[in-house]
Parts: sequence; structure tokens; C-alpha cells
Amino acid sequence: MRKGILSKYKDHLPVSPNTPALSLCEGDTPLIPLENLGEELGIELYAKFDGLNPTGSFKDRGMVMAVAKAIEEGARSIICASTGNTSASAAAYAARAGIPCFVLLPAGNVAMGKLAQAVAYGAKIIAISDNFDVALDMARQGSERLGMAIVNSVNPYRLLGQRSASWEICEELGDRPDWLILPVGNAGNISAYREGFDYYAGLGRCSGLPKMIGVQASGAAPLALEREFPNPETIATAIRIGRPVNGEKAKSAVKDSGGSFMAVEDREILAAQSLLASKEGVFAEPASCAGLAGLLKLKNAGKLPQSIKVVTVLTGNGLKDPNVLLSSIPPIEPVPGEWSSLEELFRR
Amino acid sequence: MRKGILSKYKDHLPVSPNTPALSLCEGDTPLIPLENLGEELGIELYAKFDGLNPTGSFKDRGMVMAVAKAIEEGARSIICASTGNTSASAAAYAARAGIPCFVLLPAGNVAMGKLAQAVAYGAKIIAISDNFDVALDMARQGSERLGMAIVNSVNPYRLLGQRSASWEICEELGDRPDWLILPVGNAGNISAYREGFDYYAGLGRCSGLPKMIGVQASGAAPLALEREFPNPETIATAIRIGRPVNGEKAKSAVKDSGGSFMAVEDREILAAQSLLASKEGVFAEPASCAGLAGLLKLKNAGKLPQSIKVVTVLTGNGLKDPNVLLSSIPPIEPVPGEWSSLEELFRR
Repeated sequence: MRKGILSKYKDHLPVSPNTPALSLCEGDTPLIPLENLGEELGIELYAKFDGLNPTGSFKDRGMVMAVAKAIEEGARSIICASTGNTSASAAAYAARAGIPCFVLLPAGNVAMGKLAQAVAYGAKIIAISDNFDVALDMARQGSERLGMAIVNSVNPYRLLGQRSASWEICEELGDRPDWLILPVGNAGNISAYREGFDYYAGLGRCSGLPKMIGVQASGAAPLALEREFPNPETIATAIRIGRPVNGEKAKSAVKDSGGSFMAVEDREILAAQSLLASKEGVFAEPASCAGLAGLLKLKNAGKLPQSIKVVTVLTGNGLKDPNVLLSSIPPIEPVPGEWSSLEELFRR
Repeated sequence: MRKGILSKYKDHLPVSPNTPALSLCEGDTPLIPLENLGEELGIELYAKFDGLNPTGSFKDRGMVMAVAKAIEEGARSIICASTGNTSASAAAYAARAGIPCFVLLPAGNVAMGKLAQAVAYGAKIIAISDNFDVALDMARQGSERLGMAIVNSVNPYRLLGQRSASWEICEELGDRPDWLILPVGNAGNISAYREGFDYYAGLGRCSGLPKMIGVQASGAAPLALEREFPNPETIATAIRIGRPVNGEKAKSAVKDSGGSFMAVEDREILAAQSLLASKEGVFAEPASCAGLAGLLKLKNAGKLPQSIKVVTVLTGNGLKDPNVLLSSIPPIEPVPGEWSSLEELFRR
């Protein structure tokens, strides 16, 4: 029976007898072999589909840890500044634990679609007539003044829980892959993977770090392009971040693993999303597809070694953000329900 | 490593050496203990969350079987009439298998949101300027005249694959639950559960059928209210069906298990959806919540036995259909990003 990561990995996480057994059965997401695309690329390719977590993104791995520890440490509510996957995950685990979750969002960026989940999970949503940094500052003040637990990426338990994805990959493959390629926004996930592989290597469960390739959208690529992005812009909203909180950790992960950062264009991300869905039957949100876009770009540049084992991380479900895709659909002209009008279409 | 149901249950499904090893790692969905609601209801309650299948619904269990057998039997394309979960699942497995998928939809009911997945997976979508029955008839003709495999619920392999959900429940609980309560639209799923429990009972893996309770929306309740519904209507679109294809099978499942059919109002379904998300952190599409709505209704009527073990089936992910929920959100008035304006809100 799947019991979630606090139970499965209790010996490797800060789980004490006083930590509540919080779980939405997160983790244990499939490592899907991408045989069609792997063949085209000349590699052994897998997708770690973390979009099949309970709230549809990898955030659940860290959030279950953060919320459980918040309760253990006496917090009676949690708070975050977010308009996306973080708020959905925070709201779900708070609901499960029976404590209030406050979501602060910058009013200018209220994307109602992205908030559907937080609303469903019963979060208390407060719009701030200011930018994200102010919202985050207010969350910090709520934490310091009222003892609410802040569960933004400044919360140290988030990354500890997120390491579980690397452990699952090692267990499924019997070792680390040759390469791990994944989207990089706030740079927390790549840092968590690094720490997870390091930890498992220390236990003799894998042979060190895979080469880690962090892919950013070219409109929000402070690490890949080594310059500031005061106004980051990309259709891949989950990685639309100009100042990554975990930037330094991510740099060392890339350096120590012999990897690199790279940037891809929005159109390359969308092409990768379409390819992944139409060639493999896997629908991931745009940001998730940055890794595959990176592989395609490396292949075209003659820089992709052949026959290596590669895992690309799909961080979120395609159903999280269908609007980008829907806006590209041409209108469908109806035809009469008669065989004569259909036969030609079928034979095309 | 999760390999999908054709591999996991190859000894119990029509899998031959010639059946392609098709998989999106479907199945093995979590059986989530609903302790908060279970306590309120006085029962031991679990949710089988089939919304965490690869395309977000239980349809994947039957579709992987149907598409694999279609290929084994020589079909070079598949076809279905659908505007919902069936077309998403069909399109995904066809993409994975590298064959075309034709989706016929009645033009009057083109809900673009519901089609985002089929579009992403590269299905060939044809709108028919007529009703669903005509679209289904055209799909049948495509099948008969051109050898396309029809994967609507008339395809017998669908229910065979769907039995796998009952097997997983038995494996997790060690036996069948006392009750299984689930939404009923076309009545295929309740029939598949019945056949799955019967099959496992024959192998000595469970002690017969649970009491099976089929819940319909009151605007589309031909089985629960025993009358015709020529124009079915409900917000739970996945069960908006007036003439269930598998109605007779479902009647016998209910009768033989000592169960019943019941109808719930749309507002009861929405209340159950909200309760499930806000008390347990589980977001399921409206139709999925009919089972919980039924339990609440039985409890209020004093007809729910205490301390029994109940599984309710959540057939689809809440992200499939967020619009019903979004339309109910009042506008959020922004407040200034200052502690003085926030403190009161936090303390409320």
C-alpha cells in the first residue's frame, strides 16, 4: 500500500516519533520509458512524471515534509506567497492536516485558473496590491510575528522532502542515470536532486552524481545566461523566475557533476511539449518540457552523446495549464454526419 | 518499477505473446485513507484515486487493453465518438503506439477545454454537425468499412482492463471492502468492478462481492430512478448519460451484491467535491464525487451502517474540469501590502 514519502523514507528524512503521519500518498510516481523519442535521440530515455503526484506537481514531495514539521513544531497555520503549484500543494496538505493555509498573491498576477486548486482545497486567499516580493515579505512577517509556518522555498524542509525523487529513480534503475536533465526556475529542485544523489551515494545505493543539466527558458535564464532578469518572461510560468533562491546550490550541483546550464526558447519548449504528448502520450505542463527541449537542442548541435541513459524530470501535469495549448487550436469546421463526407477524412 | 497493467496482470488479462507491451504506467493508483471524513461518517473510508492515472482518469485501465488488442488484431488506426475522458485516453495510447486516433464529436457539444488533451496527444478531431448517436454510428461505420478499431465502450477489452482497479483494492486491503460506492454513467465501470471481484473471488483472493452502490446524478439517473432520460443534464459531465450501454450488467451487479442505485442532486455533488478537497486535500472531478455525495445522503437518512469499511471510487482528476468550481469564486479584493492591513485578516 502506498503510504507516502514520510512513511516510505522515514529513515532518511527528519521524521521523529512526534512528526504527524501526514500523507496524500505522494511520491512513487512512474519512471516512464520514452522509447519513441529515445530512439530518435539515440539514447535510453526516461521521464520521471512527477505530474502524477496528488496535486499534480513535484511540490508535494517537499510540502508534506514542510507541513508535517510545521505541525510538529507547534504552528497552527501555514502561509505562502505564490500563484502557482506551491499554493496548490500547501493548501492540500493544510486541508489534510486540518489547519488553515493563507495564500498571498500579488494582485496584478491573479491568474484564476492557477488558483482553482487552492480555492478547492479551502485556502484563505489574500490578494496584495503590490508585487511578489512584497507578498513574500508579508508572508515572512506573518511567520515571524504570528508564528505561522512559512512554506515558500525558504522553508528548509521542502528540499529535504524533494530528495525522494532521486531516491526513487535510483531504486528503479538500480543506480543513478548518466544524465539528469530538468527545468530550473527557483533552482530548488535541481539542488534537492543533487543532495539526494549525494546522500544515496553515501549509503552505497548509487555511484555518485549523474551529469546534471539545468534548463531555463531564455526569457528567465539568470543561471544559463549569467545575467540579471529583473522582468522574467516565458510561457513556462512555473520557471518564470529572475532571482533563483537556490541559485548558488544549483551552480555547485552543475559544476560538481560535470554538467551545465542551458537556455531554450519558448517555441522550443512548446515544440517539446507537443512532441512528448503526440509521440509518447505524456502530457506535461510547459515548464516540465524544458528538459526535453534541451535534449533536442543538444542533439541538433551534435552535442548529445549516444547510448547514454538519461532521465528528464516532468515537474507538473499538463492539465495544470492547458490554456497555452488551447489558444493554438484552429477552429474545427463541422461536417455532416454522413459516411460520404467522412470517408475521405478517414482515408487522408 | 511500475510497468502498467498489461505487464502486472498479464496472467489475468487476454495478453498473448503477440500482444504489444503497451504502457503509460497506468494503474497502481493510491488508495487514500479518508480519515477526517471517515470519522465524521463513522466508517473506515478510503478513496481509490484513479484520477492519478496517466491521462487523469480510470479510462486508461481499459484503453491500454483495447489499443493493444487492436494492434495485435491488425488495426492500423483507432476511432471513438467522445468529447471527454475517453477521447483523451484513446489519443494518448494511440500516440504511444504510433497509430492515428480519430475522435468524432457532436459539434453542438464541442467543449474545447475537454479536448485539450486529445489535441495535445495529436488525435485527428472531426466535428459532426449532428448528435452523439450519429457520431457513434459513424465511428461504427469507420470500424466496419475501413477496419479501424472502435474503442468506445462497445469494445469488449475496455471492461477487461478496468477490472484491474478491483484487484488493486483487494491487494491493498487484503480482501474486498464491505461497500464499494461509485459514480454510474454508462455503467461500464461498476460492471468491471463486479467482474473483477468475482474473478478474484474465484481465485480465492477475496471473499466475494462488496455491497455495490451505484450513484447517479438526479438529472441523468435512468438506473436509480428507473425511467428514461432522453435529455440527461448534470454538471457532472462524465456521468451525463441517459442510456447506459452496460445498464443490464450494472443492475445484476447491484442485485447480486445486495447493493442499490441511488440519485444525488448536482448541489450535493458539488458539496461533496468541496468537502473532499477542503477536508482531505483530494481534488476530484465533479462526477467522481457522486460516491461521497451518496454516503453523506445515506448518513443523513440514518441508513449508513457504522464501522464498516467503504471504498469510494474517484474516477477522474479535478484538474480535468476546474470551470464549475472557478465560476463559483467571488472576486478577490486586493489589500495594500502593509502589515497593518493584513494582521486583521490573518487573525480572523
